[in-house]
Amino acid sequence: MQSDVIEADLKRITITDPFLGEYQWLIRDVVIPYQWQALNDNIPQAEPSHALANYRIAAGLEKGEFYGMVFQDSDVTKWLEAVAWSLSQQPDAALEQTADEVIELLAKAQCDDGYLNTWYSVKEPGQRWTNLAECHELYCAGHLFEAAVAFFQATGKRRLLEIACRFADHIDAVFGPEQGQLRGYPGHPEIELALMRLYEVTQEPRYLALARFFLDERGRQPHYYDIEFEKRGGSWHWGGWGDAWMVKDKVYTHAHKPLSEQDQAVGHAVRSVYLLTGLAHVARMTHDEEKRQTCLRIWNNMVQRRMYITGGIGSQAIGEAFTSDYDLPNDTAYSESCAAIGLMMFARRMLEMEGDAHYADVMERAFYNTVLGGMALDGKHFFYVNPLETQPKCMAHNHIYDHVKPVRQRWFGCACCPPNIARTLVAIGHYLFTPRPDALFINFYAGSEAQFTVPDGELHLTIRGNYPWTGEAEIAMTHPHPVTHTLALRLPEWCDSPQIRVNGETAQGETIKGYLHLHRQWRQGDVITLLLPMRVKRVYASPRVRHTAGKVALQRGPLVYCLEEADNGSELHNLSLPSDSPLHEVAGSGVLQGKVLIQTEGLRVATPEEEAPLYSFDTPPTSVTKQTLTFIPWFSWANRGEGEMRVWVDEA
Amino acid sequence: MQSDVIEADLKRITITDPFLGEYQWLIRDVVIPYQWQALNDNIPQAEPSHALANYRIAAGLEKGEFYGMVFQDSDVTKWLEAVAWSLSQQPDAALEQTADEVIELLAKAQCDDGYLNTWYSVKEPGQRWTNLAECHELYCAGHLFEAAVAFFQATGKRRLLEIACRFADHIDAVFGPEQGQLRGYPGHPEIELALMRLYEVTQEPRYLALARFFLDERGRQPHYYDIEFEKRGGSWHWGGWGDAWMVKDKVYTHAHKPLSEQDQAVGHAVRSVYLLTGLAHVARMTHDEEKRQTCLRIWNNMVQRRMYITGGIGSQAIGEAFTSDYDLPNDTAYSESCAAIGLMMFARRMLEMEGDAHYADVMERAFYNTVLGGMALDGKHFFYVNPLETQPKCMAHNHIYDHVKPVRQRWFGCACCPPNIARTLVAIGHYLFTPRPDALFINFYAGSEAQFTVPDGELHLTIRGNYPWTGEAEIAMTHPHPVTHTLALRLPEWCDSPQIRVNGETAQGETIKGYLHLHRQWRQGDVITLLLPMRVKRVYASPRVRHTAGKVALQRGPLVYCLEEADNGSELHNLSLPSDSPLHEVAGSGVLQGKVLIQTEGLRVATPEEEAPLYSFDTPPTSVTKQTLTFIPWFSWANRGEGEMRVWVDEA
Repeated sequence: MQSDVIEADLKRITITDPFLGEYQWLIRDVVIPYQWQALNDNIPQAEPSHALANYRIAAGLEKGEFYGMVFQDSDVTKWLEAVAWSLSQQPDAALEQTADEVIELLAKAQCDDGYLNTWYSVKEPGQRWTNLAECHELYCAGHLFEAAVAFFQATGKRRLLEIACRFADHIDAVFGPEQGQLRGYPGHPEIELALMRLYEVTQEPRYLALARFFLDERGRQPHYYDIEFEKRGGSWHWGGWGDAWMVKDKVYTHAHKPLSEQDQAVGHAVRSVYLLTGLAHVARMTHDEEKRQTCLRIWNNMVQRRMYITGGIGSQAIGEAFTSDYDLPNDTAYSESCAAIGLMMFARRMLEMEGDAHYADVMERAFYNTVLGGMALDGKHFFYVNPLETQPKCMAHNHIYDHVKPVRQRWFGCACCPPNIARTLVAIGHYLFTPRPDALFINFYAGSEAQFTVPDGELHLTIRGNYPWTGEAEIAMTHPHPVTHTLALRLPEWCDSPQIRVNGETAQGETIKGYLHLHRQWRQGDVITLLLPMRVKRVYASPRVRHTAGKVALQRGPLVYCLEEADNGSELHNLSLPSDSPLHEVAGSGVLQGKVLIQTEGLRVATPEEEAPLYSFDTPPTSVTKQTLTFIPWFSWANRGEGEMRVWVDEA
Repeated sequence: MQSDVIEADLKRITITDPFLGEYQWLIRDVVIPYQWQALNDNIPQAEPSHALANYRIAAGLEKGEFYGMVFQDSDVTKWLEAVAWSLSQQPDAALEQTADEVIELLAKAQCDDGYLNTWYSVKEPGQRWTNLAECHELYCAGHLFEAAVAFFQATGKRRLLEIACRFADHIDAVFGPEQGQLRGYPGHPEIELALMRLYEVTQEPRYLALARFFLDERGRQPHYYDIEFEKRGGSWHWGGWGDAWMVKDKVYTHAHKPLSEQDQAVGHAVRSVYLLTGLAHVARMTHDEEKRQTCLRIWNNMVQRRMYITGGIGSQAIGEAFTSDYDLPNDTAYSESCAAIGLMMFARRMLEMEGDAHYADVMERAFYNTVLGGMALDGKHFFYVNPLETQPKCMAHNHIYDHVKPVRQRWFGCACCPPNIARTLVAIGHYLFTPRPDALFINFYAGSEAQFTVPDGELHLTIRGNYPWTGEAEIAMTHPHPVTHTLALRLPEWCDSPQIRVNGETAQGETIKGYLHLHRQWRQGDVITLLLPMRVKRVYASPRVRHTAGKVALQRGPLVYCLEEADNGSELHNLSLPSDSPLHEVAGSGVLQGKVLIQTEGLRVATPEEEAPLYSFDTPPTSVTKQTLTFIPWFSWANRGEGEMRVWVDEA
């Protein structure tokens, strides 16, 4: 089993990429301080967070009442996780001290038996574990565990890890198959994946067993959510939201039947991918073929039938949920930022298990499009919902668009997506590299410096380039002592003719599942050069998708492009792209400086005068003229004010 | 003023049309008896109606509690109105006796002061007129008035008219500008148009004045809905539906500002057109140019920017409401049957005022498409919502389609659309003909026999043909004595080359606003023959509508056509119609017997195998083959089981 513990082999990754490096800076200097002010209720006009105050009250340091959502605690632990990954990128003594103080606050708020949740300690003492379906205790525990692992890995400090393990031990005592234990599992998955991280760091087999327990119990009959609902007399938490639907709609929580019997991505998209991330991790660590097959089935359904070209998932706002196969409306999409992050997490665990570039392709697609797009270029505004088509003047009046915002919003007190984006961006190195027993997999080529322990010694490497704007990259070996190991270099799906050289010679290796495996002794000064031509590609969706019939999208490297009103005028639905128009790369300017745009000759159907008839007979009431179309990377839309946007364009 | 009272000039209209005649039969033999059973709670498995029981309780004939909606009474009066119009088509002594008994029940339920509403009499005595914004008292009164006028016109009996007038007199005493009167107006318009009908029959000027009062008060500040809301302590009727939104959202009720300051069709579509129907009637009768201009402004906005090709209005389910200009989504449309009926009513009043065929064009479009489509060919199933595109397999899982049903539903107890469709179909003669002072306008050419009093005598005519399947019709004069009058014959917008002859000679007349005006002495045996070629036409929407970009619809005569899965297979979005494909008329069979279908050579993009990639690069993953496309009249879709449907088809 020891050989499978791959996270521990990763010593250190520093992002030096000109593009992603800027995001590291934004998170450290803008996002983390802003969130700190939010957690302390120091932001005027923002909804209060009260999250730190809740901990102080639970710790007996302050009088007052709990305020916030049932998962308010997780805002603090997500912040701690982001801080941890940021410290691993760049030390910051003052920030680390602030985090240490928060950790001490958590220690004081923790109950003697290890329990730690301020909602229940302050607001509903005695009601612990009575409403797993709705109340997020195990979810909050999971975010605490993730923060603890990150903080330990970033700083070597064990204080938060001890708090997490005390709580995990308590949960392990409460839940299980024995007499007197609860056979429940969370309404919002998260603890499964978090326990697996805790297990990787601590090697405590009870944590692995507990994660497996939660997964195996899920969806069994008689249904635990019904049992606990009965036991508490039929009360439900989200009173205003209807008739205990979160308890009754088992599909919403992927708990309608045992996971081993499931084969579709259903329900709340974030819950789905968080759950499957834990499942894939357990499947790999326990060599559980049944769980692996479940992961493969649901993955294939999700990615082959229910995923937007942008790596977004969740086609509808109600339930923030999956709908059905090939139902991918562009304008009413939910495509939550957090769901794309969860898809990255699920893809990462599948990649660790399968060593197949397909998972990295999806991970990269979700990251460079929906996750990056979730945050404005200024680092201060965020999307929860990521549509592929918008027309603001109609959105304001048609309630099917109520969830869609035409521009990113300030990040206020209580929020899931912004801190999730923050922690993902500062931890991106963990997605760049996948250290597996058979090879060190390099998934995409963002500039970075990384150090790994491999069986033959220490492997240090530096990636340089300007990914994802150019496909030219260089991987230089910097470790002092020669080390024999396999490097597996991803050959991206979007690249027709990758050229890879080692010290100037065409690389000799075997391509397995989309990775070029290079096995040799690597010496300081060895250089791998990659040439991954990023020709602009036309992308077509399956004709099973009705929303993209007759339409085309553009992609260059991993980036999906879109038309925006700022460059192309309004009424984008009247623009079309002839199938033979050459596609030219041009340099962006202004806020799009440094980005590669695409220009091409397109056609525009003229907008008729206001008094023209709504319907006309026989002759299309149109005059068609040529117009230069400018496509920008979709993740960078809505950084120039409010306007129309669309990814899928009619092909003429 | 007398010359304006045109309704009274209409003696009798009998529908003899093979097509619409069948609907008369369906209403009389299927719909009216079925609804009678529903009103009496005799339909197993249906929600109880209790509507007649409510009247019996209010009359003191029975003990019990009120049950149903706040507008439950109107189910009875709508039934009475349908019965009345049906009796005017074909006498039925047993049915008339049943109706007389119901009328006696209403008489017994009426309070001594004339008030008649069972909700308030039984359930909330003492609370009369405290919640006009939400509680439909004036709406129910309006439907009583409409039934009374219809019953009087059909049978000559005055009993229901007396009940109506007593109630109207009471309302006239309660509401008005004087000290001690209420300055309110209804949340759901209807009484305005109904008072105008009552005025036409009774010539009582107080009814006209009261209608005008309600219209003039609407939207004034301080706002009456707020005043009464305050007065009753901030309580609201639709408790479960949110925070008194029906009181607060003044746009929903077209009451956000005075009508004279409005220029858009907004809010609840049914409320909007009911309101405007009354407004147009008052404008004509009082020669009020300001009101006329308001009607013209809002009409133009509604019909030029917010109306589906099917004559449907209301682009969204939430609020059953208008959205914004050119926002006409096909799959999430609301397009309520009742709203199309209301649009017919509004068009009829505009036509009476303007004498312009444009209004008849819209009236005909709404009738032959959405109104007819609201009822199944069996007369037993109904649509409330009339989408222009459906894909049932996705509708079941995406909540943006919750309001859309893939097949028509059984008509159960409490319902607005089915009885509304019923009363409209049996009263269709009143839309066929518009007797104006300047001419008798004949709007469309459904087979019928009609008698009118005109200044020079009695004009009797018989229309024969097979409208709307053929454009050949004959109008024969049957009155015994010669009479000089102008007949104005509509030249439909869909007809390029109308040919009209009188007794075999090309008709000599003046075309004014889309009507051919023929002034002469009409003698028994005179025959007008019409040849209105119904070539199949391609229809294009304005490029301002993004949902129809690159798409075409087919229309023949007034009928809009659609593709249905039953004829064309599934995945209708993969079908396209080349711009040069000839369009052939073919005869329908089975349930579509007697209907003209359209066939043409189209193209189909093949559906890829299930495991084909969701997204592919560079080459469209498509093979295109020829396929014969069969279009059916849209009103007749969903009569052959559940399947896909679409009106707007890609033009190749």
